[in-house]
Amino acid sequence: MHSQRMARVRRRMDDLDVDVLLLSVGADLPWLTGYDALETERLTMLVLPRDGDAALVVPRLEAARVRERPEAFSIMAWDETDDPVDVVVKLVGSPSSAAIGDHTWARFLLDLQRALPSTSFRKGSDVTTPLRMVKEAAEVDALRAAAHAVDGIVAEMRARPFAGRTETDVHRELVQRMLDAGHERANFAIVGSGPNGASPHHEAGSRVIEPGDVVVCDFGGSMHHYCSDITRLFVVGEPSSEVRDTYAVLTSAQEQAVHAAQIGTPCEGVDARARRVIADAGFGNRFIHRTGHGIGVETHEEPYIVAGNTTPLAAGNAFSIEPGIYLPGRFGLRLEDIVVATPDGPERLNQAPRDLAVVE
Amino acid sequence: MHSQRMARVRRRMDDLDVDVLLLSVGADLPWLTGYDALETERLTMLVLPRDGDAALVVPRLEAARVRERPEAFSIMAWDETDDPVDVVVKLVGSPSSAAIGDHTWARFLLDLQRALPSTSFRKGSDVTTPLRMVKEAAEVDALRAAAHAVDGIVAEMRARPFAGRTETDVHRELVQRMLDAGHERANFAIVGSGPNGASPHHEAGSRVIEPGDVVVCDFGGSMHHYCSDITRLFVVGEPSSEVRDTYAVLTSAQEQAVHAAQIGTPCEGVDARARRVIADAGFGNRFIHRTGHGIGVETHEEPYIVAGNTTPLAAGNAFSIEPGIYLPGRFGLRLEDIVVATPDGPERLNQAPRDLAVVE
Repeated sequence: MHSQRMARVRRRMDDLDVDVLLLSVGADLPWLTGYDALETERLTMLVLPRDGDAALVVPRLEAARVRERPEAFSIMAWDETDDPVDVVVKLVGSPSSAAIGDHTWARFLLDLQRALPSTSFRKGSDVTTPLRMVKEAAEVDALRAAAHAVDGIVAEMRARPFAGRTETDVHRELVQRMLDAGHERANFAIVGSGPNGASPHHEAGSRVIEPGDVVVCDFGGSMHHYCSDITRLFVVGEPSSEVRDTYAVLTSAQEQAVHAAQIGTPCEGVDARARRVIADAGFGNRFIHRTGHGIGVETHEEPYIVAGNTTPLAAGNAFSIEPGIYLPGRFGLRLEDIVVATPDGPERLNQAPRDLAVVE
Repeated sequence: MHSQRMARVRRRMDDLDVDVLLLSVGADLPWLTGYDALETERLTMLVLPRDGDAALVVPRLEAARVRERPEAFSIMAWDETDDPVDVVVKLVGSPSSAAIGDHTWARFLLDLQRALPSTSFRKGSDVTTPLRMVKEAAEVDALRAAAHAVDGIVAEMRARPFAGRTETDVHRELVQRMLDAGHERANFAIVGSGPNGASPHHEAGSRVIEPGDVVVCDFGGSMHHYCSDITRLFVVGEPSSEVRDTYAVLTSAQEQAVHAAQIGTPCEGVDARARRVIADAGFGNRFIHRTGHGIGVETHEEPYIVAGNTTPLAAGNAFSIEPGIYLPGRFGLRLEDIVVATPDGPERLNQAPRDLAVVE
């Protein structure tokens, strides 16, 4: 798997005339090699020339962590008093064009630019995005397994009490359940109760959940390197007719957007479908974010389901469909599933019930 | 506090002739403003001109998260179909010199460089490091409180069983205890048992801890934004005389390095002191990392206690002293405390006992 990816990366470097690919922190490196760099001030960087052998520049005291695929690259361990940028520069020679991983720290890019003044730098994602966007069958299976795990957590949470607990308490439970369900990492857990739900990226806080609250739970983690991401709503006691009616608009918008996610449809077309349903119901200015994002080894990656993205969906694209309606000071609603575009039409990876969960 | 820091940052920008400071993800932004950017593909960036008002460019759906110090900067919320780099570029005008936060993603620096071809970019740390290195009294208090919290965890762990548990299990307990002890975030927890302890950055895994093992526990988190970081050793059953003797060398090295950490001593002098003790005992090539790192709003920051760093220690510098001795295939030893340089000499912030903890 990794060696096939490496071959495809090299072909794409040829197409783009990129002499060397430099990958540090971020998802490209584990996607390509299986190795995930520690994010610290000690530089880890894969140096992958278009022609020639790859080398992983790594702090000596982390060299023992590199257990993956020793045949794919050599290890260049640097000592505490070495300058790792020098090590990279010696390896790359004088390339005219380099691509550098998108999440690499600016300080390392500045050092490399100073040391390689005649090299033109571009984004690593120019090389990797078109490849990462199309999931292999094994990747879809990994996404499906991660989705299945969080579906199970939704089922468990529907039987749990919410009233009287803080958002932070629910947040911790979600994190713990993700780890218990086989995720190696809990990436995030948004718990927005009552008026806090109207802030889409609300950070779980000390607010105590009350009867009548709608609670937005949006959470995800990484399982065998692939990400989960799901949003479901929990209502404490019977929801008001306003909440029910507004949620009916949202479920219709989500349903129609999922249906629109056919191979060949531009990403912006899927976004427009959700947006039209919500606007037609009078909530156009209450849907304040894009409809979705790609997902894979990163929670957010290409393709983004957003106005202006004319890229047509292709088989193997995996992405969220998550419209929302936010009423400031009152409540927020969002519904999210992960979907894969297939020749047989869109496949939802999440199977958790999508009705409003009434909890105590 | 934050407005004083802002004034000092502007003075330093004057000294360095930096026209604008651009801060995104990383610790500089919360240190300067109290606001911590989400690390996502949606750019958050503080634009701080040398003269003129600061503005925080932030995704519209995260604007509600920005509750800190509204008087310090205006909010420039961008919509999902805006290009946030354009927003930043319009705010900065045509600076001849910009400093950009060290951890900013390379993709955003590349976009900014393309949009501002006549601007010279340098590291944000050129501006902030000399300021962040010298802790204010309140910052030392915050570090002391965080250190006290992990000291308590060490005390609790000394009474816990280790044999028969996996490293992962101990890792999870440490993470949970950090959160229970008031840390808002557990940043890391290294659990290296038996031979795994010889890999300084070992990732806790499925190895089951056995009688006779030395277990290296190195963990830390953030409490009110300031970091803890401590390493202690737990031995399952009575340690061998070899472990005892080697550990005696290590404690002596740590003790002497702490004692050497006087105001005016070059950082490399502190490193050399620890290294000499270990080398004299015949383990010179078994101490494979620097002696320590600065600590504050980041776990690792300046000043680094490493050969080649001739910067003299100043009052208010806070840093770890953590020599180690690693015997590959057998065991590893490390002992770490956080120390502050003061006019009265070095003050250890950690008070947990430093003897070998014998556990079941």
